[in-house]
Amino acid sequence: MNLLLLTPEQHLAGARWRLTPRQAQHVLTVLNGVPGQQIRAGLLNGDVGLATIETIKNSEIEVFFKADSQPVSPPGLSLLLALPRPKMLKRLLIDATSLGIKQIVLINSWKVDKSYWQTPNLKADLLREKMLLGLEQARDTVLPTLTLAPRFRPFVEDNLDSWAGNSQRILAHPGDHPPMPHSQTSPTTLAIGPEGGWTDYEVEMLQKQGFSCFSFGSRILRVETALPALVGRLMQLP
Amino acid sequence: MNLLLLTPEQHLAGARWRLTPRQAQHVLTVLNGVPGQQIRAGLLNGDVGLATIETIKNSEIEVFFKADSQPVSPPGLSLLLALPRPKMLKRLLIDATSLGIKQIVLINSWKVDKSYWQTPNLKADLLREKMLLGLEQARDTVLPTLTLAPRFRPFVEDNLDSWAGNSQRILAHPGDHPPMPHSQTSPTTLAIGPEGGWTDYEVEMLQKQGFSCFSFGSRILRVETALPALVGRLMQLP
Repeated sequence: MNLLLLTPEQHLAGARWRLTPRQAQHVLTVLNGVPGQQIRAGLLNGDVGLATIETIKNSEIEVFFKADSQPVSPPGLSLLLALPRPKMLKRLLIDATSLGIKQIVLINSWKVDKSYWQTPNLKADLLREKMLLGLEQARDTVLPTLTLAPRFRPFVEDNLDSWAGNSQRILAHPGDHPPMPHSQTSPTTLAIGPEGGWTDYEVEMLQKQGFSCFSFGSRILRVETALPALVGRLMQLP
Repeated sequence: MNLLLLTPEQHLAGARWRLTPRQAQHVLTVLNGVPGQQIRAGLLNGDVGLATIETIKNSEIEVFFKADSQPVSPPGLSLLLALPRPKMLKRLLIDATSLGIKQIVLINSWKVDKSYWQTPNLKADLLREKMLLGLEQARDTVLPTLTLAPRFRPFVEDNLDSWAGNSQRILAHPGDHPPMPHSQTSPTTLAIGPEGGWTDYEVEMLQKQGFSCFSFGSRILRVETALPALVGRLMQLP
């Protein structure tokens, strides 16, 4: 936790905020917090600054927050990701959020096991919790917008174009394609398929929506390895 | 498992090899293997090709292996990594190996918890097992050389220069430095510090050995996120 992320339900009055039990635990056990101590903090979807510990009462902590700057700017990358295995979903959301991705769609694909859509991990509050962890990690405050698209074709045909907006649309796909672009600073949308890849039909559907195939080398990487590697390659991280 | 990696102790005679119980389990349950079926395989530190299932006897599988090509060429990246938390070590080794890193040093640092050096995960056979998983993932066969450097200064002063050879020596370090290079095709050595970073003294010691500091943006990333992101950025993956 590199940032105390303060959410509206933690607001007391004026500049006073109450830490969540998890944050208080971290402040007491990892940071050895004492009254007067200052800790990097930020308001959800708002500025970052310093939180000064005001009171510690039986492991309940209240802080005084003063904003001093805006959060780190994001790299301008959106992610269209085939729904991963439930046990990987948590890590991918934390990674994607800590890397600064602000738009995420989890979409179905022929090779996505149907059971993945039944997992309780897809509950909105659990997904939000993972993204908050990613924000705390990267000292960011701006929560990504996360969309679930359990049906591939309707989303791709009816929603994908407006969702991707004016971004360059990139499909990481094995085969004889141009090498993956690098160090982009303009808006970019990256589509990553399931293990086993998109079907030819799915690739065609995405190409119809302006996606182009690029090669990222001939190694077969796990999605959780490929995502940070592709983001690191594609974007100039601010 | 995208490749059946055949190790010397599995060799029977001529072109016949016996699969390990883990490989046999995978072939039977995931690939629904039957005699005559062909599966991508490779010889440890050797060529890749096809393994044809010869016999299946009570979940013991023997195959006939025929090489047809060399493994995917590596990107030419060496990694100097501060010893990570034990629970992350496994993943980092699998990721580093699947990304094609062929030289790895796990080194001590002021901010590495001393207990990390006591973990049983550092036993040679367990480290090797993780790297084999990374090779299977990426369809590679060439096992990285892994060195443990439990004392920072002696290794950096006496061994680092010859270990890094003629490579460009890159230090991922927060601060006002030139942006991280990208798409390198020449030999490169990447140094990644512990959570909390190298100390100033450690940075100076590494700079004396020809390492230069580069910035990778202002986001604080977990080591397990930063490693693939840095490799994806730094190297042109073949």
